[in-house]
Amino acid sequence: MTEQPSHAGRITISVDAMGGDSGPATVVAGIAKSANKNPDIAFILHGPEQTLRKLVAKRRVLEGRVVFRDCPDVVTMEDKPSQVVRSSKQTSMWSALESVRQNEAHGAVSCGNTGALMALSMIRLRKLPGVNRPAIAILWPSRNPQGFNVMLDVGADVRADAKDLLQYALMGASYARNGMALERPRIGLLNVGTEEHKGRAELKEAHALIAEFAEQANFDFVGFVEGSDIPGDKADVVVTDGFTGNVAIKTGEGTASLIGELLRQAFKYSPLSRLASVLAITSLNRLKKRIDPRRVNGGVFLGLNGTVVKSHGGADATGVSAAVKLAYTLAQSGFAEKLAARVASTAELAQDAAHTPSKAGE
Amino acid sequence: MTEQPSHAGRITISVDAMGGDSGPATVVAGIAKSANKNPDIAFILHGPEQTLRKLVAKRRVLEGRVVFRDCPDVVTMEDKPSQVVRSSKQTSMWSALESVRQNEAHGAVSCGNTGALMALSMIRLRKLPGVNRPAIAILWPSRNPQGFNVMLDVGADVRADAKDLLQYALMGASYARNGMALERPRIGLLNVGTEEHKGRAELKEAHALIAEFAEQANFDFVGFVEGSDIPGDKADVVVTDGFTGNVAIKTGEGTASLIGELLRQAFKYSPLSRLASVLAITSLNRLKKRIDPRRVNGGVFLGLNGTVVKSHGGADATGVSAAVKLAYTLAQSGFAEKLAARVASTAELAQDAAHTPSKAGE
Repeated sequence: MTEQPSHAGRITISVDAMGGDSGPATVVAGIAKSANKNPDIAFILHGPEQTLRKLVAKRRVLEGRVVFRDCPDVVTMEDKPSQVVRSSKQTSMWSALESVRQNEAHGAVSCGNTGALMALSMIRLRKLPGVNRPAIAILWPSRNPQGFNVMLDVGADVRADAKDLLQYALMGASYARNGMALERPRIGLLNVGTEEHKGRAELKEAHALIAEFAEQANFDFVGFVEGSDIPGDKADVVVTDGFTGNVAIKTGEGTASLIGELLRQAFKYSPLSRLASVLAITSLNRLKKRIDPRRVNGGVFLGLNGTVVKSHGGADATGVSAAVKLAYTLAQSGFAEKLAARVASTAELAQDAAHTPSKAGE
Repeated sequence: MTEQPSHAGRITISVDAMGGDSGPATVVAGIAKSANKNPDIAFILHGPEQTLRKLVAKRRVLEGRVVFRDCPDVVTMEDKPSQVVRSSKQTSMWSALESVRQNEAHGAVSCGNTGALMALSMIRLRKLPGVNRPAIAILWPSRNPQGFNVMLDVGADVRADAKDLLQYALMGASYARNGMALERPRIGLLNVGTEEHKGRAELKEAHALIAEFAEQANFDFVGFVEGSDIPGDKADVVVTDGFTGNVAIKTGEGTASLIGELLRQAFKYSPLSRLASVLAITSLNRLKKRIDPRRVNGGVFLGLNGTVVKSHGGADATGVSAAVKLAYTLAQSGFAEKLAARVASTAELAQDAAHTPSKAGE
């Protein structure tokens, strides 16, 4: 018989212990970090039970706060989503989503294969009524007072038409409102120039649609934004298709990491620069913390019946803990229910707008 | 009568003095910088002659090295390319291209409106036979030994099909060979994942086409690369469509600039961090120089009969000087002629390949 969680009063996060680059020990270290900081959190842990029990037994803070689900199989980074969908009922990833589906957990976290996780999430949790393509939203360090911007889609789907982009705007606004406490978020649509004559045709159509829905969905539409606005302060939410979004964040990450490396080299160059680096260490750590990708680890899948957070495959314990915290924050704010209500209330109207294209330009 | 340049033995660069954000004084300061460093360079300067003559007279190093072309009109950043094409014969931008067309200059440099410059370049210089869409190539700081990667297209055209991407690969390889002295450059095709099952359909087709031409065009094809490889060391040339490329570099630039700003803030935080910043100043300047966007200022238009370098609109004198140097280097290597020969020799074969799509997969 399956052990039942009895985490009375606690928010339970379902965690896929497998599939990350550094194995289950890192995941267990991560949830221990979360448990240490947050007395109101509990876990369902999915993977090879014997291994997991041993790892959890070493962390006293996890005592009585973890329930196990034994799963012999693992979805690897090399598995194709189409294969995974056919034959993965024995995997820790499937099992982690199943706990959300069965309402045993308030959200799921996995470090595994993004494509497979999205494909399984769509099958097990199903899309919200009115959502055509779910999206992955991430937080990106920015000049805004909240320190981060929301960007979506960053890779759930390589294509998005005007109506999908409208859905992303609605979902992104809802996420910014619940995850970042921005009452009236500013939404920007990513393009190659801010002038309205530039860019692709579907973007012009999306521009008209999003403008039309801004008032009723309670956000400000700032119009077209450029790549430089992703870390900027012109918008709180940047909307784009999954291909462009994925390339943009990986370029940004790569550039930030190159700068970090060159900064370290610069400080090793001479005895004087080494001395400077010792004196500068607190300043540099302050900077590092501000832009540390581990602090904002976690892509949130939007548009499903339930919250799924994708942690970076290479996440360390700090990264896993950040992804768990994100799932916790969203669960606590009742985000999934609010998002479902928001999408439902606008889906019908969007349908109407699409049927009367002349209206879009008004 | 038009004054004729008599810059015997020198390489002449045609410079549009207008259209940049900070006006002709900055452009003249920039060409003076170039003239100072390089005795073999001369200029044709386009704009309001009286103003330009006064600015040039203040720089002794420019004496006898500048010929003027009086132009009353300016293409502004707000002008739409379609308008510019119809009514810009009196502009400094048109005139600057005309000097290349008439073989008075070895290349043109402009800080003006990118869309207008590309539209006018296509009309005045015309596309190379076999090129469907010209591209804009830039250099991006990277982990590679040469310190930079080539990336194209970054905004000449928002769309590119598989054959266009093949052309970009050929032109990018030629640019890396002549501009960066890489005998056998490694070409990567930008996608959202390195697995071949990911990404858009036209990218799979382009993958097959580029692989087929690698040997004969003397480059290595490393296959799909991701956004993180743009500043990486996996490829020397990253090929993508102009929409994705433009978003990627602007995200990278924006992120780099945010980090620089936060770094300055971090060093102002406390008296100790201020002391550290004084000691670290040479280290920080070394880093700054390594990733200074002004040092690699200049998007090169590829696929035209003649070399056109687009300088950043906000370029200062150092930036203008870098763009002039790039035009000089390419002129000196006979790049335009070599590129034309390379494109001509493969255009016919590409045509064949496109007519027998089954071959592409072999």
